Parts: sequence; C-alpha cells; structure tokens
Amino acid sequence: MSEVNRQWILKDRPTDLVGPEHFEWKEGEVPEPGDGEVLIRTLYFSFDPTQRGWLHTEASYVPPVQIGEPMRAGAIGQVVKSKNPEFSEGDYIQGTLSWQDYVVTDGSGPFPLQKLSTDYPLTYNMSVFGLTSLTAYFGLLEVGEMKEGDVVLISGAAGATGSAAGQIAKNKGAKQIVGIAGGAEKCKWLVEEGGFDAAIDYKSDDIAAKIAELCPEGVDVYFDNVGGPSLDAALLNLAMGARVVVCGGISSGYSGWAVPEGPKNYMQLILKAAKMEGFLVLNYMDKLPQAIADLGAWHQAGTFKVPEHLVEGLEHAPETLQGLFTGKNIGKAILKVTDSNV
Amino acid sequence: MSEVNRQWILKDRPTDLVGPEHFEWKEGEVPEPGDGEVLIRTLYFSFDPTQRGWLHTEASYVPPVQIGEPMRAGAIGQVVKSKNPEFSEGDYIQGTLSWQDYVVTDGSGPFPLQKLSTDYPLTYNMSVFGLTSLTAYFGLLEVGEMKEGDVVLISGAAGATGSAAGQIAKNKGAKQIVGIAGGAEKCKWLVEEGGFDAAIDYKSDDIAAKIAELCPEGVDVYFDNVGGPSLDAALLNLAMGARVVVCGGISSGYSGWAVPEGPKNYMQLILKAAKMEGFLVLNYMDKLPQAIADLGAWHQAGTFKVPEHLVEGLEHAPETLQGLFTGKNIGKAILKVTDSNV
Repeated sequence: MSEVNRQWILKDRPTDLVGPEHFEWKEGEVPEPGDGEVLIRTLYFSFDPTQRGWLHTEASYVPPVQIGEPMRAGAIGQVVKSKNPEFSEGDYIQGTLSWQDYVVTDGSGPFPLQKLSTDYPLTYNMSVFGLTSLTAYFGLLEVGEMKEGDVVLISGAAGATGSAAGQIAKNKGAKQIVGIAGGAEKCKWLVEEGGFDAAIDYKSDDIAAKIAELCPEGVDVYFDNVGGPSLDAALLNLAMGARVVVCGGISSGYSGWAVPEGPKNYMQLILKAAKMEGFLVLNYMDKLPQAIADLGAWHQAGTFKVPEHLVEGLEHAPETLQGLFTGKNIGKAILKVTDSNV
Repeated sequence: MSEVNRQWILKDRPTDLVGPEHFEWKEGEVPEPGDGEVLIRTLYFSFDPTQRGWLHTEASYVPPVQIGEPMRAGAIGQVVKSKNPEFSEGDYIQGTLSWQDYVVTDGSGPFPLQKLSTDYPLTYNMSVFGLTSLTAYFGLLEVGEMKEGDVVLISGAAGATGSAAGQIAKNKGAKQIVGIAGGAEKCKWLVEEGGFDAAIDYKSDDIAAKIAELCPEGVDVYFDNVGGPSLDAALLNLAMGARVVVCGGISSGYSGWAVPEGPKNYMQLILKAAKMEGFLVLNYMDKLPQAIADLGAWHQAGTFKVPEHLVEGLEHAPETLQGLFTGKNIGKAILKVTDSNV
C-alpha cells in the first residue's frame, strides 16, 4: 500500500456524462487524525448513480462535492490510527468517504461510519447488503408496497438495482416479474440467470405493446430505473391502484434533475388511481435490521445473488463511475484500491 | 315542462376542445318505464371535467358515451312514473343520467340513483355536496394527506374544484394556502373572496420563482388541476415528503389522457421523497358520510361556500360544457332544465 495519499479531485462539474476529464489525479501526504478522529485506509469503493447528483452545484439531500475536493464515494476501509474511542486500529468500517488512499474523519454526518463484521467477505457490504440492494428492497416493498401475487415490471432490469429488485420480487412471491433491458444479451441474462419470467428489449421491442401482451391484467408495481419511453409505456399498462416507484432516470444522471421530456402519460395515474413515488433510502433506516435479515436469509438460501463487477486500481475510478451511465456492466461495480505502482 | 323529450345526442367525438359542433339537438317521444324502471324528469345538470373523458373511444373507469346516445351527465331530477318499488312518484333523485328532458333507468350502475333530502336547495347536491366538493375533499385529505400546519398550493384555484380545495384546506388548518389562476381578476377573487392567503397569476408571474418566494420552506401538498408549467414549477418547490395530488390536467380535457409534454421535473420526487398520486372519487365512497358531515358543518358555519354558476335552458348544455375548459366561469356550473319554447 502506498505511503503517499493518492486522490482523485473534482476538477470540473460535468454538465452531461461524467468521465475522467472531470477529475484530476493528485498525490500528497498521508494526513494525521486529530482528537476524536480516525485515519482510515480505503480498501473498496462503491459506484452508485446517486454520486452523479453530488456533482451538481445545488445541494440535494447532501451538500454537493466542491471543486478541489476528492470525489465522495461509498467506501470500505480499515482504521489505521484512532483518536476516537468508538473505533480501534484494525476495525473494518463502511462509510461515505472519498476517492483517496487515506481519509481522516470523525465518523459522524448523514452516513455515519459503521463497523463491519468479518463473518463474510467485506465486499458483501457493497453487493448483497449494499446501498443498491437496500434501494431495491425499500423501493419495491415500502414505496411500491409489493404484495404476494403482484405483477411486477422493472426497467434497467440488468443493472445492479434492477436485478436486485427482480430477485426480491421473486422471494416475496410476485406472480410475474418482467424486466426491461437493452439488447438481446441482457434480456437472455434476465430470463436465464436473473430469475425474471420474461424480458423486453427496449432497443427492438414496442415496449408498450409488449407489456400489454405479457401483463394483460396490468402492472401492479413498476420499478423505474430509467424514465423516458419505458416509463411512458409502463404508465399505459397500469393495473388499478398501481404503484410506480421512481428510483432513477438515466437522463437525470446525464443532465441534472430535469429531463428533456417528462412522462407524457402521467395522467393515467388518475384513470388507474395510481401513484408515482420517489424515495431516499436514508428515510428507511429504522427498517434496516429487517432488510439485512431478509437479504441475508435469501442470500444463504441461494435465492438472492448480487454479481460483483470488480475493478482493480484506484486509477480506474473515474472511468468506472462513467461505466454506470453508459450501461456497460452487469452486476455491482466495486473498485479494489490496489496500487499498481508498487 | 315540455311534452316532447328534447335531447342532446353525441354526433362526433371531439379530438380537441369539446363544443356545440359535437352534439345534435333532437326531439322525440317521452319514453315509458318498464318493470323495475322509473321515468325521471330532469331538473338540473352538472358540468364536470370528467365528462370530457367519457367522449374518448376507449373505456376509462366507465364505458364511453356512444355516437347517437344522449350525452351522459350528473343530474338531479324527479320521479314522474315508477315501476320500481324503491322509488315513488315525486321523489327527488340524483344520478348519472343524460342530457334530455326524460330518462328511463333502473337506477343501478356504477353511480346508482340516490334519493335526495328536501331540507336544503336541490342544487346543493351539485355544489356544496357535489362531485366537485367530494373530489376536493378526498383529493386533499385522503390522497394529499393534508395535515394541520401544511403549506398547500392549488392550481386551477378559481375553478370549482380548486376553490373548494382552498376552503377545505383552511377549515382543516393549513398554515398557508396559495392559489394559481389566470388573470388579475381571478387572483383578486382568490384572496378577497376565496380565502386564499396569496395568489399567483400564471399569465404574468414567473410561477416557480413566485412559489419559492411565497413558500420558502416548500410545498407540503400540491393539488394540481391543470398540469403543464404549473405542475413543473410546483415540482421544483416541494417540501420533503410532499404529496402531489393529480386531479386533472386541462390538456387532458382537450386531447385525451396523454399530454404533449409531461412534467419534466418529476425526478424531484426522488430528491424530496415525494409522491404524485391520482384518484377516483368512487374509491372513497366508504368515507362519504364523514365528508358530507364535514362539508355540511362548514357550510352551516359559513366557512365553506360553493358559488353556483347557474345557466337556464337545456339548449345551452354544449356551450356550458365547453366553458369548463375555456376558463370562463367562477363557481360550479349547473344548468337548470327550463323550456324556453313554452
């Protein structure tokens, strides 16, 4: 592990797709923790669509990352020095840190440091029990109020959140689970590996017609990761009392929280007495123990798998973040902080 | 009252604004009720935005009105002949009937005939206790989950539903009630007569900036009657956990249930963990007694008024329906079935 502190600093705010050109590589001294603080050596970084939102100038649910600061990211690390009685040298922790080898923190904030168990691989905290799984879990079950026997439709279904949502729906007894993804390869994966009953290829299928064909009685829960034409097609095929879970929109990742065209069929919400609802995982932390218990039990039973897309080397962080928005990966993107210079 | 049965028949389906050109005046014989049926002489017709939805070819929550049929409408009438043991000659009733002097019905269907009290003016059943008031009541309180201390924003605020929603919000202890309407005259009415704390003129104000100025802590409940730019502006100014009640969209009244541009700021639902929800008053019939009790008590106390916009003469029905969508009227449009030929 390096004795210098390598960092990826935010250089410019992206206006469109985020990529390596928005970050600058820096090397500096390893910082010292003050009273109440710990020094953490980072081991793994998580890549999450919400990071794109942190790059806007305006605050969302957390303040934006400032120009000149290292890029904020979900991270797993190990405490190497502690001046905080709650943490000891050697503790493995998870928290919202930043793209650098070493981070000094007092462990507080909206995402406080959590000590990790060593009973299972550390990366499970980013995959099986990661933010993506929790997003799928709370989105589908709390916001989407999914019940046994529901017809569930999921867009971005081959992505990290979408594939987790599909498996949770199956574990919770959905009658039918249909995924929307781009391309024959992803659609094949959904049905053969992902546990989906059927797949719709938005690149070649008439999405609305295909949903109508596959779900003739309408969709009870639509878990939307993409917005755009998939959302409009789903709105045309809602069952009475349907719930549309607004989890993301690729468009928002590119250009902010407004999209070029909103869902023009949103008035279907009246005809079907349906709702569209957004959410923040933060608001469900009181239900975290139940989520961990459910996901853990399903994982152990082999009915909840989260494939990891592991990238090695801190130098690849910016391009791995970009990969989230260009649809290249299957599974949860995790970067292992190795030092290719040593 | 005429001895012929005068009717307005649906001649053509409107593709845009509905108007007199879509209906044909006919005169025929007064029908006879069969076993289990009653003959009703119509006295008043209600005008409601939902009637526009009944003119599409596809069914919504009820089947469409067919070409050649008299136009369906909420109505108050009096039983003139009865072969149904549940109704007697002279009973005043309310139901979903059609634009003609006489209607034969068995009283069943999704909107069954209701006998009316004669303790108060018959038209109160269309104004104070009418569908519009119930829409405002259930929309604001059940769908919008309005609580004491909430900041409430209402579009189409000078319309029948909007002005009812504003008064209900006040009776239920909203902290602040802001209305959006078109033109200085309507805005003046909102504040001076309608009980609103402030008004926004969408024709001359920057809607989003004005909402931000008037509601610096964000909007808890947005009751949307219009869609379009007002909805997008409201989405930019939601409080955390806000509820957007999708009650209508003037655009939908023109051209169906899809609009040219959906709400491009709908992704704000994620940032504010907020929901947009549509509804059908039909689904809240179990709570009707409470609604009638509340509205009646407020009406008696003078804190819930529904101005009636009374039009006389069946011949004016099509143009009165059109008036709903061209924003001409203040108050609840009701037509009194008088016969100008007698």
